[in-house]
Amino acid sequence: MDTYDLIVKNADIATSGDRYQADIGIRAGRIVAIAKDLSGEAGEVIDALGRLVTPGGVDGHVHLDQPTSDGAVFSDDFFTGTRSAACGGTTTVIPFAAQQKGHSLQEAVDDYHRRADGKAVIDYAFHLIVSDATHAVTREELPRLISQGYTSLKIYMTYDDMKLGDRQIIEVLATARQHGAMTMVHAENSDCIGWLTEHLLAAGLAAPSYHGNSRPMVVEREATHRAIALSELVDTPILIVHVSGQEAVEQIHWARGRGLPIYAETCPQYLFLSADDLQPQGDDHAHGMRCICSPPPRDKGNQQVIWNGLANGLFTIVSSDHAPFNYHGPRGKRLAGEQAPFNQVPNGIPGVETRLPLLLSAGVLGGRIDIHRFVELTSTNPARLYGLYPKKGTIAVGSDADLVVWNMFEPGQEQALTHAMLHSACDYTPYEGQTLRCWPALTLSRGRTVWRDGVFTAQAGDGQFQPCLRPREPVAGSPLAKWL
Amino acid sequence: MDTYDLIVKNADIATSGDRYQADIGIRAGRIVAIAKDLSGEAGEVIDALGRLVTPGGVDGHVHLDQPTSDGAVFSDDFFTGTRSAACGGTTTVIPFAAQQKGHSLQEAVDDYHRRADGKAVIDYAFHLIVSDATHAVTREELPRLISQGYTSLKIYMTYDDMKLGDRQIIEVLATARQHGAMTMVHAENSDCIGWLTEHLLAAGLAAPSYHGNSRPMVVEREATHRAIALSELVDTPILIVHVSGQEAVEQIHWARGRGLPIYAETCPQYLFLSADDLQPQGDDHAHGMRCICSPPPRDKGNQQVIWNGLANGLFTIVSSDHAPFNYHGPRGKRLAGEQAPFNQVPNGIPGVETRLPLLLSAGVLGGRIDIHRFVELTSTNPARLYGLYPKKGTIAVGSDADLVVWNMFEPGQEQALTHAMLHSACDYTPYEGQTLRCWPALTLSRGRTVWRDGVFTAQAGDGQFQPCLRPREPVAGSPLAKWL
Amino acid sequence: MDTYDLIVKNADIATSGDRYQADIGIRAGRIVAIAKDLSGEAGEVIDALGRLVTPGGVDGHVHLDQPTSDGAVFSDDFFTGTRSAACGGTTTVIPFAAQQKGHSLQEAVDDYHRRADGKAVIDYAFHLIVSDATHAVTREELPRLISQGYTSLKIYMTYDDMKLGDRQIIEVLATARQHGAMTMVHAENSDCIGWLTEHLLAAGLAAPSYHGNSRPMVVEREATHRAIALSELVDTPILIVHVSGQEAVEQIHWARGRGLPIYAETCPQYLFLSADDLQPQGDDHAHGMRCICSPPPRDKGNQQVIWNGLANGLFTIVSSDHAPFNYHGPRGKRLAGEQAPFNQVPNGIPGVETRLPLLLSAGVLGGRIDIHRFVELTSTNPARLYGLYPKKGTIAVGSDADLVVWNMFEPGQEQALTHAMLHSACDYTPYEGQTLRCWPALTLSRGRTVWRDGVFTAQAGDGQFQPCLRPREPVAGSPLAKWL
Amino acid sequence: MDTYDLIVKNADIATSGDRYQADIGIRAGRIVAIAKDLSGEAGEVIDALGRLVTPGGVDGHVHLDQPTSDGAVFSDDFFTGTRSAACGGTTTVIPFAAQQKGHSLQEAVDDYHRRADGKAVIDYAFHLIVSDATHAVTREELPRLISQGYTSLKIYMTYDDMKLGDRQIIEVLATARQHGAMTMVHAENSDCIGWLTEHLLAAGLAAPSYHGNSRPMVVEREATHRAIALSELVDTPILIVHVSGQEAVEQIHWARGRGLPIYAETCPQYLFLSADDLQPQGDDHAHGMRCICSPPPRDKGNQQVIWNGLANGLFTIVSSDHAPFNYHGPRGKRLAGEQAPFNQVPNGIPGVETRLPLLLSAGVLGGRIDIHRFVELTSTNPARLYGLYPKKGTIAVGSDADLVVWNMFEPGQEQALTHAMLHSACDYTPYEGQTLRCWPALTLSRGRTVWRDGVFTAQAGDGQFQPCLRPREPVAGSPLAKWL
Repeated sequence: MDTYDLIVKNADIATSGDRYQADIGIRAGRIVAIAKDLSGEAGEVIDALGRLVTPGGVDGHVHLDQPTSDGAVFSDDFFTGTRSAACGGTTTVIPFAAQQKGHSLQEAVDDYHRRADGKAVIDYAFHLIVSDATHAVTREELPRLISQGYTSLKIYMTYDDMKLGDRQIIEVLATARQHGAMTMVHAENSDCIGWLTEHLLAAGLAAPSYHGNSRPMVVEREATHRAIALSELVDTPILIVHVSGQEAVEQIHWARGRGLPIYAETCPQYLFLSADDLQPQGDDHAHGMRCICSPPPRDKGNQQVIWNGLANGLFTIVSSDHAPFNYHGPRGKRLAGEQAPFNQVPNGIPGVETRLPLLLSAGVLGGRIDIHRFVELTSTNPARLYGLYPKKGTIAVGSDADLVVWNMFEPGQEQALTHAMLHSACDYTPYEGQTLRCWPALTLSRGRTVWRDGVFTAQAGDGQFQPCLRPREPVAGSPLAKWL
Repeated sequence: MDTYDLIVKNADIATSGDRYQADIGIRAGRIVAIAKDLSGEAGEVIDALGRLVTPGGVDGHVHLDQPTSDGAVFSDDFFTGTRSAACGGTTTVIPFAAQQKGHSLQEAVDDYHRRADGKAVIDYAFHLIVSDATHAVTREELPRLISQGYTSLKIYMTYDDMKLGDRQIIEVLATARQHGAMTMVHAENSDCIGWLTEHLLAAGLAAPSYHGNSRPMVVEREATHRAIALSELVDTPILIVHVSGQEAVEQIHWARGRGLPIYAETCPQYLFLSADDLQPQGDDHAHGMRCICSPPPRDKGNQQVIWNGLANGLFTIVSSDHAPFNYHGPRGKRLAGEQAPFNQVPNGIPGVETRLPLLLSAGVLGGRIDIHRFVELTSTNPARLYGLYPKKGTIAVGSDADLVVWNMFEPGQEQALTHAMLHSACDYTPYEGQTLRCWPALTLSRGRTVWRDGVFTAQAGDGQFQPCLRPREPVAGSPLAKWL
Repeated sequence: MDTYDLIVKNADIATSGDRYQADIGIRAGRIVAIAKDLSGEAGEVIDALGRLVTPGGVDGHVHLDQPTSDGAVFSDDFFTGTRSAACGGTTTVIPFAAQQKGHSLQEAVDDYHRRADGKAVIDYAFHLIVSDATHAVTREELPRLISQGYTSLKIYMTYDDMKLGDRQIIEVLATARQHGAMTMVHAENSDCIGWLTEHLLAAGLAAPSYHGNSRPMVVEREATHRAIALSELVDTPILIVHVSGQEAVEQIHWARGRGLPIYAETCPQYLFLSADDLQPQGDDHAHGMRCICSPPPRDKGNQQVIWNGLANGLFTIVSSDHAPFNYHGPRGKRLAGEQAPFNQVPNGIPGVETRLPLLLSAGVLGGRIDIHRFVELTSTNPARLYGLYPKKGTIAVGSDADLVVWNMFEPGQEQALTHAMLHSACDYTPYEGQTLRCWPALTLSRGRTVWRDGVFTAQAGDGQFQPCLRPREPVAGSPLAKWL
Repeated sequence: MDTYDLIVKNADIATSGDRYQADIGIRAGRIVAIAKDLSGEAGEVIDALGRLVTPGGVDGHVHLDQPTSDGAVFSDDFFTGTRSAACGGTTTVIPFAAQQKGHSLQEAVDDYHRRADGKAVIDYAFHLIVSDATHAVTREELPRLISQGYTSLKIYMTYDDMKLGDRQIIEVLATARQHGAMTMVHAENSDCIGWLTEHLLAAGLAAPSYHGNSRPMVVEREATHRAIALSELVDTPILIVHVSGQEAVEQIHWARGRGLPIYAETCPQYLFLSADDLQPQGDDHAHGMRCICSPPPRDKGNQQVIWNGLANGLFTIVSSDHAPFNYHGPRGKRLAGEQAPFNQVPNGIPGVETRLPLLLSAGVLGGRIDIHRFVELTSTNPARLYGLYPKKGTIAVGSDADLVVWNMFEPGQEQALTHAMLHSACDYTPYEGQTLRCWPALTLSRGRTVWRDGVFTAQAGDGQFQPCLRPREPVAGSPLAKWL
């Protein structure tokens, strides 16, 4: 007679590949059996009543309690940030341990563990931001840290305190290739942004909406092409993060067609927000600050292109790029005052809690993508790409029991999203008023209930650090590869 | 205490989305439980010993016992053809019920059931070839047959006894759109082929190798673009079958990038054969006849493009296009004699048995695609596209117990494929000498063993007809759609 | 001491390649000297006073007095049509001798000479419309007629009384290749148009504006791609006539990039008109009939693409596609009544007189193209492509003295185009109200004044038939070419 | 009675737009009359006997007596370099006044005039190389120098002593836009080259042929895309110099299709040389040094793409990029010794004398381009683009009498090019052995004979500096333009 800690009965299970009705047997935090009418003794039985059950979300792009160089303070620490994630169905987050120029990566990793330990309510891993690609970093620290479970690197082509030159990017990519890491690239041309910003400010065009004008599509397209070229040169895959519109999509599409392993991420801001959201609202001239992020939300035509890219396979991952700054108060969006020019407004918006419900509502229930693609984009692919699969990212025997049981609203019972529904410490949501057709009824993290029927039930520290293990990709032999 | 007819223990299960170790419990031909250390009583236990277990193959493009207009005879009937499939790990085939001009589709369906009944050893469904798209067909027969489980239609843009004009194609697509069928398109421009053939023959260039010259890439590219345009006009998905090289790939890639639902199939002949295989071999001047199929195998550059298309997501399906004609004897390749001009040689090659082992060997073990993509291309996607999923195409609770346990050869123990290893009635294989790194150790069809350790164990008639049920695709709203 | 019949002094000469100030000496209808301060005796001296002087226009696409199959009557015969051309600065027209199905091409040529003889006031050549590509036509008549100076062929992919199937198109192209003719292609997919038209009419959507819906861009794109493919197959150049928008432009651009000799023509209707012009105007519900032509005018975005194609070298020729039908009266646009469904309205609009002034105004004076490109598109290139160069199409020693002296309006003195200004027999202009910044002050045809200071001064019969002599193009060797 | 200094009779004149037979009357160095049977008194009469006469070549990319930073010495000064040009039919050269970092542009211009004065035998203008784009340069020197006739700027994206960062490139482009200059861009990614070079040398791969491996196509493609993006951002035209193969061509093609004013130059090395020419020859291991230039010659497939680009309008200009270093002696190719690693070999090859004869032979007489395109690419377009037209670049009344009368070799009388035939001071030609089908019989520079029947007849100092005057281009309004 088998025994289980928990059985989820009558689940309408959807994974990246499958959909079927079954019972799920969980023991010691893991899925150990999936069967029709699972028999055996159970510590607890939850009847899903035929409801949709998906793998818990893996959010591969979030910023929590990250030090900044300008004095701005991220609204969420590891407790409030992971609480918000859990309430929205996400059971793993991967924030960034960010190297500071002149310091070692190890310092960043140590500091970041201190910030996460005892606070996270769901599991987490770390990406490494490389902002100073010295030989000590690329030849010593990175190989060691990669082997210790930090297998994804992020590099910036813009932001003065982060950006790398082409030669440094090449060195990071060559290290990633040799040691099997995945490199995430923020692709915007820094010099172009700088020049446009100067001209805009000189012309007195400083309102939040000019943030968009300072980073037009061509700026992202150029950097995307360049990142692809460097990846091709070094013969190693990259992931272009937060792709925002058509011109960048075309570059990635073209690269894929040539057989290059270029992965791409997009975010809810490019699916649900647009340039209009940077405008003032009524008397609130600073209102557009709430949606300042980079790249900026584009026009409706670009939105449609991003939706197409979800449907046609272009995108690998949908992440939140959760980067919350309070709209009110002195350390968030108004750091430089209510009248601050756009380039002094902290970049980033919250979104870790709303990512899954919004995409399931507008994407799957709205008929744009199927449920398998939803699971793949939001859970399986990030787990796989960053080395957490099969522990995370699926519902299968042997995987962690990270599950979401969904409450689907009847037609006519859709709800408008409001900030009051959310569990982040950030004081607003940029998605206010968006239509919700579903919300998690239950979130399980390694078999523990963390969110059920509107109540958050986890404790700070329940979450565990998850070292990543990326299998080496089979890469096409490059003519350059023999010398590398 | 649960009871099972069969338990497959210690399976290294790979599906389109997952990979994990577990036991599989089977009852009444279906998978009912997947678990670590599955307990319960079992009629039989097979220990997979940690071997790779995949869903049985679904071959979405095979020709068995199909009537011809020129007197040629397909080598395989439903018994020998499905036997061959089973021995190579395929558990479902979808051959074609072909309408003859001037006759109804129902006649073709009835005739084809008579040919299959009592003969097939594995399950099967039927595609419908529409060669005479009268109103009676598009408005009456097709809607009825689609509702009865014949949900995929095939149309030809070439072959005098099959081809439809653009207007007829549009009518078929409009019917497919309205009733939720999938349309497969053989895309080659008939007039171009006719003109080139006349000129080649007039110039005395009639040897088998000129088959390739009579159907250059431009001929396939043009028809591919046209099929895409008609699909776009009618606002309904199509599948381009047997895509052979770069110029057609570019068209499909371009269409996908624009958000159009264009699916694509390729076949082993475009991955493993090339134009060289149409040449004479030693004294055997007719040797090239063995590889005459349409479109013809292209050059090595095009081969690489097709492999890239497997890796980068372009292709949806890999089918065999099994169309076997004996090389020796009067009713096969030599129908018009040993010196027959290329255009009188029956078109088609065998391949239903070798499809999975070749692709797993060169594709997955050769490092070009991962195991998930292999399963997706050869089993899950054809099942899904043609309406057999989730009964077929995966390993999940509730699905048919169609499984393959693989025998992987140790490095150094690879085998050269020979015709003697195969179970088709066809007297040769075009893949003679190709390297095998694996072969099915066991094939299960609805829980019954049909192939085990080199012995074929099924009976004629064990296979069942499977009606197809295609869910309607969510299609992007077309500006034309409102009038259709 | 040299003598001249006429000296045009102080001309600001612009050709496709050059611009300079000089005097032009004319003798016996030809230019014999170009010099600073040309000395010698002159029968007449015209002082151009530094005004712009360009080669007379060559309009490579006009329909004059052409028989129709539905009883509609073209408004212009050879007298009124060439008068209209001359007053607008065009000195050569190339209308169409149209074969009728079941008849010979020679009959069409003979008939057409009868219609032109004694009527034309400027020079003319004939294109041949091939509507019945029998062997007698492609193997006997065409070679003979091409050698006699009819070196350009036109084929239709739509219109029931004109269209050729792919095989016939190939035969015509092969003949053109062998005998050095240029083939013009009207590229729209007939079956698509037929199907859409049926559905629109069945839905009661019959007003003139639905003409545009019955011929969407995809219909033109498909046929353009197909024409390119057939040209590539046969290895001979073609000219795609009246290209209307982006999707067709992309195909041509792509073909050019691959090294294929694909030429393209556009017309003023795609630069100055849009889909809005097919709408009713006030109470005049039939008003849109005035702008019914095929392909239909597209939206503003497509207009811009066509302008870009003039600037960036995509287009080879700008022609008028002058095809005038009266708006009032029973044999023109209202042939089937004022309420006629769009598909019963004769296709075509007038434009032979307005082509040059509109393009010089909006194109050159509007800053979109330079004067050299204007001359090239409207005069030199058509002369060269159709075999009239260097007799026509330039200002050079030895060329016919076909010249236009332009009157440029001062800024602020622009005029609105009105029908009253024109000299066609057609009862309206679709360009009513367009801004004119110039008009010919003087038109010379072989040294004779045909239009001066607002007065038409030529006689019926002054124009001469000009046999065409096309040099063979150097074509890239095709892999198929060796068998042709 | 008109009088002339010189009449060239019976010329078969070919310009970018026209071809006709006439006499050319020259007075005071300029063309003053073109006529059939030109009467009048002449100081000298040259009978061209119906031979082809083209405008003298304008070579828009040559390096003469240019200071270097590594001690290498260009073989040609202004006397030997312009002598070589004249003997090959070129009558205007535009070398580079190169700013040195830390110095002003004016210093470079002054120095360069000193080097040219009294030495040049044909006319010349200067491009300005901007290697230090300080505000003093972009805001003061450049506007002044542009207004003084130095209207073309060159910038480098590679070479340590020359290269500009993106921000500096933007500043230069913004200056060019405001003051109407044309910017030439050497597009190769410096960091990529540096990284590859380090790895190659570390692996002991230092022979001349590895020069090609250190600068693969992707390196040029990336920089080309970046240059296009910066040009698009600033909304001003650029010319990409010495484009070498397909990947760069695709970028330019794509940009043009989008309506961007991107011009492109190629050079004989990409039409006549290939990677094979970097290999050793027999015992001469250094032989490949002779063909080291950047970008390097590519493979034969890329050669064909460049030829296609001449034919299909992609390229605007063919220049020589004449940069001669002796193969023997200590200050040329062997500066760092006979065994020098590839990256220490001076970059550049001679070619100012062979440009026209090679292109006329293989391009026009070889059937790849017509004579008009030849003139346009080698004379009219560079004159026009750099502001020397209509003084230079054509045969027209008012233009300088810069003419070439060609000696065409009879079929079977073709000659193999040898270094002994040439008049540069460089000690080899990379085109040794190429087939010549023609050579100038006579070169006129402003009416003076500088080369006739194999004899060089000019004097040092006969050439004059030509200030350039570029008309402002009409540029499409950019959405960014309003702030610039």
